[in-house]
Amino acid sequence: MTRDPLPSSVDMPKSRRSDRRRLGRERSGQHSPARTPGSNIVRNIPAYGILSDDRLSEIEEHADWILCEVGIRFQDDPDALRIFTDAGATVDGDRVRFDRGHVKELCATAPEVFTMHARNPMRNVTMGANHVVLAPCDCAPFVTDLDNGRRYGTLADHHNLTRLLQSAPGLHHNPAIICEPSDVPVNKRHLDMLYSQFRYSDKPVMGLVNSEQRAEDSLSMARIVFGEEFLDTHAVLLAGTAVQSPLTFNVETTDTIRRYAAAGQANMITPFIVMGAMSPTTIAGTLAQAHAEAMTGIALTQLVRSGSPVVYSVFATTMDLRSGAATYGTPESSLANMAIAQMARRVKLPVRCGGQLTSSKVADAQALQESTSTLESAALAGANYILQAAGWLEGGLTIGYEKFVIDAERCSALGRILQGIEFDDNEMAREAFIDIDENTSNLLGSRHTMANYATANFNAELANSESFEQWTENGALDTETRARDTWKRLLSEHEDPELDAGTEEELRAFIEARKSSYDDSWY
Amino acid sequence: MTRDPLPSSVDMPKSRRSDRRRLGRERSGQHSPARTPGSNIVRNIPAYGILSDDRLSEIEEHADWILCEVGIRFQDDPDALRIFTDAGATVDGDRVRFDRGHVKELCATAPEVFTMHARNPMRNVTMGANHVVLAPCDCAPFVTDLDNGRRYGTLADHHNLTRLLQSAPGLHHNPAIICEPSDVPVNKRHLDMLYSQFRYSDKPVMGLVNSEQRAEDSLSMARIVFGEEFLDTHAVLLAGTAVQSPLTFNVETTDTIRRYAAAGQANMITPFIVMGAMSPTTIAGTLAQAHAEAMTGIALTQLVRSGSPVVYSVFATTMDLRSGAATYGTPESSLANMAIAQMARRVKLPVRCGGQLTSSKVADAQALQESTSTLESAALAGANYILQAAGWLEGGLTIGYEKFVIDAERCSALGRILQGIEFDDNEMAREAFIDIDENTSNLLGSRHTMANYATANFNAELANSESFEQWTENGALDTETRARDTWKRLLSEHEDPELDAGTEEELRAFIEARKSSYDDSWY
Repeated sequence: MTRDPLPSSVDMPKSRRSDRRRLGRERSGQHSPARTPGSNIVRNIPAYGILSDDRLSEIEEHADWILCEVGIRFQDDPDALRIFTDAGATVDGDRVRFDRGHVKELCATAPEVFTMHARNPMRNVTMGANHVVLAPCDCAPFVTDLDNGRRYGTLADHHNLTRLLQSAPGLHHNPAIICEPSDVPVNKRHLDMLYSQFRYSDKPVMGLVNSEQRAEDSLSMARIVFGEEFLDTHAVLLAGTAVQSPLTFNVETTDTIRRYAAAGQANMITPFIVMGAMSPTTIAGTLAQAHAEAMTGIALTQLVRSGSPVVYSVFATTMDLRSGAATYGTPESSLANMAIAQMARRVKLPVRCGGQLTSSKVADAQALQESTSTLESAALAGANYILQAAGWLEGGLTIGYEKFVIDAERCSALGRILQGIEFDDNEMAREAFIDIDENTSNLLGSRHTMANYATANFNAELANSESFEQWTENGALDTETRARDTWKRLLSEHEDPELDAGTEEELRAFIEARKSSYDDSWY
Repeated sequence: MTRDPLPSSVDMPKSRRSDRRRLGRERSGQHSPARTPGSNIVRNIPAYGILSDDRLSEIEEHADWILCEVGIRFQDDPDALRIFTDAGATVDGDRVRFDRGHVKELCATAPEVFTMHARNPMRNVTMGANHVVLAPCDCAPFVTDLDNGRRYGTLADHHNLTRLLQSAPGLHHNPAIICEPSDVPVNKRHLDMLYSQFRYSDKPVMGLVNSEQRAEDSLSMARIVFGEEFLDTHAVLLAGTAVQSPLTFNVETTDTIRRYAAAGQANMITPFIVMGAMSPTTIAGTLAQAHAEAMTGIALTQLVRSGSPVVYSVFATTMDLRSGAATYGTPESSLANMAIAQMARRVKLPVRCGGQLTSSKVADAQALQESTSTLESAALAGANYILQAAGWLEGGLTIGYEKFVIDAERCSALGRILQGIEFDDNEMAREAFIDIDENTSNLLGSRHTMANYATANFNAELANSESFEQWTENGALDTETRARDTWKRLLSEHEDPELDAGTEEELRAFIEARKSSYDDSWY
């Protein structure tokens, strides 16, 4: 399946097409006929390369210069400093410097491709190569919908949004914090959030991060669901941490990285960069810094446990340098994302970049202009994991119910784009051309069209192609308003996936015990 | 500076970067700092190739099979049939068949690159190679705006929309019919429309088509503006005609093609394809048919006048095969557009594909999701001319004032994407990294950021990056509503470009004489 890009990219297994046709029939009315149920998208078209090899080398060399001459700080983590010292790096205070090429060597043991295991094995996803895994908005404190407006997220929202994720064929993976459940104490909500992922979804999950408590509780809960032995040798938790760019890791990040790596779980360590603030304003310099940061984080995982799975990840966007506001879906951020995917491919690692990002406060024209550009440029460039792919509004401060379903449909459409153009006798349609005669003004009634019409095209549900008159008669509803009906219907029709009763009980008991073992904190 | 990819495509004058910086300053507040004033975008990044050479060959061979075995009909045009017979094709009734490879040979004299001359030479654009020329919606009978709703277009709308085109730095070329002026008799409105292009814009223009009258009047008016001698050796009119797919040209189309080609003007002959109706439902078959049609039209231009300029053009979209409604911005249409750009590159011709297309009735989430996908996939794939790039709604039935300015901003942003990533000492930002010390938590106040902040990023005007609180305080306006203010401001501030008084008088006199020489017709 994973065969790759260039020339050979259009050679699909013979069975694939008939699979697609069959699925198209079985899943009629669902978003995408293009996926194998429960798994991710397989990109069957070449990855776009925006930069030449020489340019990629320049960035890599510049990153090496940064690592050698400037160094990266590891704050308040003597263990990390010791690990790097032992590996041969130069430690000066909390600053670590590496000889040129050293970090790349340290990363060489990270797997090129790995599997994220879901509690339902049909939902396992592959990270890396030509696989594309999409996951919704992560970390939004606010939620919004047309009925209730913008408000702090609650645990009920977390459950509902997780259900929407579960129901979306174009989304393949949970985020850690689909919204912040503000009605649960800050120091206990990680338990409820991971439970929500396990209970209301059977897709792969992300672990909670940034404290010993959250990481260890996540690992404990995963052991309940998957068993201790399985956990040690299979990635079932993806830990998404952020680098404190520029060129700084704090101990909350590195402690989390070390714990997940030691447990054989997957790390995704993200330089979170608003260019001009956390990196230079310029793209080339930003790419070099991000590469230095991402690779150093990956090196740490490999020093803790060689071969532990990791995703090369960069979040890079722009800012309005006059107002200081972060901006999304901008040309410079698309350029950066396309280059990031290439940098990761060069070092043979799964790569996370892109999203459906926007500064817009509502699911309007700007929101989807910015989101679509960010999503599709990253996907064409070869992104393997696209987090923030549904629901994101306001620079990630808010997840929108309407935006979620609008984005999710586009994620399914993206799956069809990445599937590429098929070639076989039916696709060439020789018969259709032979049928054209003096009386043929169109092919609508042709045998070929009749044989193909049901499965030929991606079936959008939310996008409206009615005539102006029909659309007006139906209330002249814009997309955001129609999307309200969609998410309500999806939630009302939704059936939660089964979860083994014993597992559920054990999870609940664990959570209860943990919650009663320490006081609430709201900070 | 960013020299990259395709050898020839990146050779920019040495002065470009400093130009950009200077322009960035001079044009502060305008859409794009990335363009040379008055000219088109230069794509400085590689064109994406979705298909392997082998697959492209298969399509070409299939097109040859169609041309050889099925043939193409030329209805009611004995002159065209005679031209093809003389060239060695086989004519049977109105059906013309070609030996394999013959049509490609006939097309070989068409120029790989040519200039469309504007009445203001600073606005000349280059068609072909790595040049990208964007033009707005063409042929909409309806117009819409938030104040007045959807209605038939008028000549006043034509003037105003042409003014908006003129004011948009991201749009480089006029369409023929920015909206239908329904208040002018059908058989006279071509005069007013071409006058509107010449009077309210100094960007290159499209000629009117589909009758001897329209073509000859367009040529006469162009002679007034450019002079007879200039016209004979320079392309100043681009004639956009449609093939009556599948595999049929009617005489209105071929008569127009022959007249413009004979006059040395540029033809753009477009298979207008809704897949499943005007072609097979399948992409590969559609590409072969479109290639056969486009190349046959191009062959006709070269047989009429060898070396006359021509654009390889295909409009291909999907339909909802259950309802029969055409659909836009769909995955299959993006795939087709990307392959079309490649097919044209293979035969070394300027290529038109893409647009900002949508079925949506309003400038909402769906509209921009579909538009952005269509625009950016075509541009990355190497489209040279993108018509329908601003204002299009409802499958082209309506041009929207708000949609126009929303799209136009994205066209400017596209220019920045296609400019690519620059590499030099400033871009690498070594100084910024050296400045990072123990006290640096971000680079906002760094010397490098301060030196670059004014010109670092594309400056969007319409996209809103305010905080939720600021945005709410400012009225919580969505993008469409803000866009209303934008187009009104643009029109109120707009100054029409100068037009030599003698030329204007001569144009008016010509129009008056023509209009009084025959009766009005409203059909």
